[in-house]
Amino acid sequence: MSADAFERTPQNTVKRIPDRGHYDKETIYQILDAAFLCHVAFVDEGKPFIIPTLYARDEDSILLHGATTSRMLKHAQTGQPLTIAVTHVDGLVLARSVFHHSINYRSAVIFGCGTLVADPAEKMRALELFTEKLLPGRWADARAPHANELKATSVIAVAMDAASAKIRAWGPKDDDEDMELPVWAGVLPVRPMFGEPIASDDLIAGIGVPDYIPAHVATQNHKA
Amino acid sequence: MSADAFERTPQNTVKRIPDRGHYDKETIYQILDAAFLCHVAFVDEGKPFIIPTLYARDEDSILLHGATTSRMLKHAQTGQPLTIAVTHVDGLVLARSVFHHSINYRSAVIFGCGTLVADPAEKMRALELFTEKLLPGRWADARAPHANELKATSVIAVAMDAASAKIRAWGPKDDDEDMELPVWAGVLPVRPMFGEPIASDDLIAGIGVPDYIPAHVATQNHKA
Repeated sequence: MSADAFERTPQNTVKRIPDRGHYDKETIYQILDAAFLCHVAFVDEGKPFIIPTLYARDEDSILLHGATTSRMLKHAQTGQPLTIAVTHVDGLVLARSVFHHSINYRSAVIFGCGTLVADPAEKMRALELFTEKLLPGRWADARAPHANELKATSVIAVAMDAASAKIRAWGPKDDDEDMELPVWAGVLPVRPMFGEPIASDDLIAGIGVPDYIPAHVATQNHKA
Repeated sequence: MSADAFERTPQNTVKRIPDRGHYDKETIYQILDAAFLCHVAFVDEGKPFIIPTLYARDEDSILLHGATTSRMLKHAQTGQPLTIAVTHVDGLVLARSVFHHSINYRSAVIFGCGTLVADPAEKMRALELFTEKLLPGRWADARAPHANELKATSVIAVAMDAASAKIRAWGPKDDDEDMELPVWAGVLPVRPMFGEPIASDDLIAGIGVPDYIPAHVATQNHKA
């Protein structure tokens, strides 16, 4: 692995439509940093399992966390291989022909093995990364974890051994013979948006929505 | 498997927070029918792989499709076990304490094995399901697949052998001792929205945006 890109190996090389493949960390990390949900795949007794979970990136590692009793986290800390995917759907690509319909997307796939983060200070820092990834500004406002809460939480660091990204970000590509068809073609953008915050009905009086909580903006834009 | 629910087995039983687990088809199929992207996990040479891809549901099967050259589809048609996940992020759950932060979500995990759909009429019907899932109304408007395009496309049907759903759909649950903290608590909704359609710049004159193409609505609502 060079400083700024992942080595291409049979494992991480994008085979279908290789022009959409990217191996540089800048591209891959932008995709990782713009989402908060990933899917983790692992093998248990020869069978594939997949778990959706929150994550954060810490330099060249993906951090996972959850209850110490979580099956996925218990498996992850055994050091067996994990594969982690993060996918953004950016739009429906509507071609004149059904065959050329597609979606615009940015996806990253990470290969690595997990290790347990045991040091309480490192765990605390990981929880700060998770919280700030969900919502920048939240860590300083919410009540910090107590020692028993830290103890009930497992944090796993997955060092990225290999990774790749795949991106499609353009309009439909129809065949020459279809270009004159009277069919609308283009892209219908899709983006996840924050709605209006819904306050708990048991809030104490006088607590307004803090400035750092966004509304009606794309989830990927409010950090800018 | 009963007519309307999946049997609970060690494979599909929700272990972490079992109250969030669901096994009835109505709940699971609603989750499946409200999204168009899934993640498919499979095992190759003992290692986990994961691929994001479009899908459609046909009764008790998940349909996958793509180029006949796709590694995932070639693997899928060997009949080896696949696990498929569909996850909706519905909101950030902001508790008074960092520890009780969470997300609201609806996820479905499907276990099954793939078989190739070889019959041209069945393949054509599958492509109609894919197209109508992306955008109801599109199939009748776009140019239908030619025979050579059908031939270049693999369709795999994954019969659902087991499945479960997991749902969190409520506000933060803070500890009693934290209820008087001066911290805003509640849910910040997240939903994927369609933006404004972007027409290809090579459209022939006079082609307006068809009525069936939505804009500025949640992707899950435009079919209602």
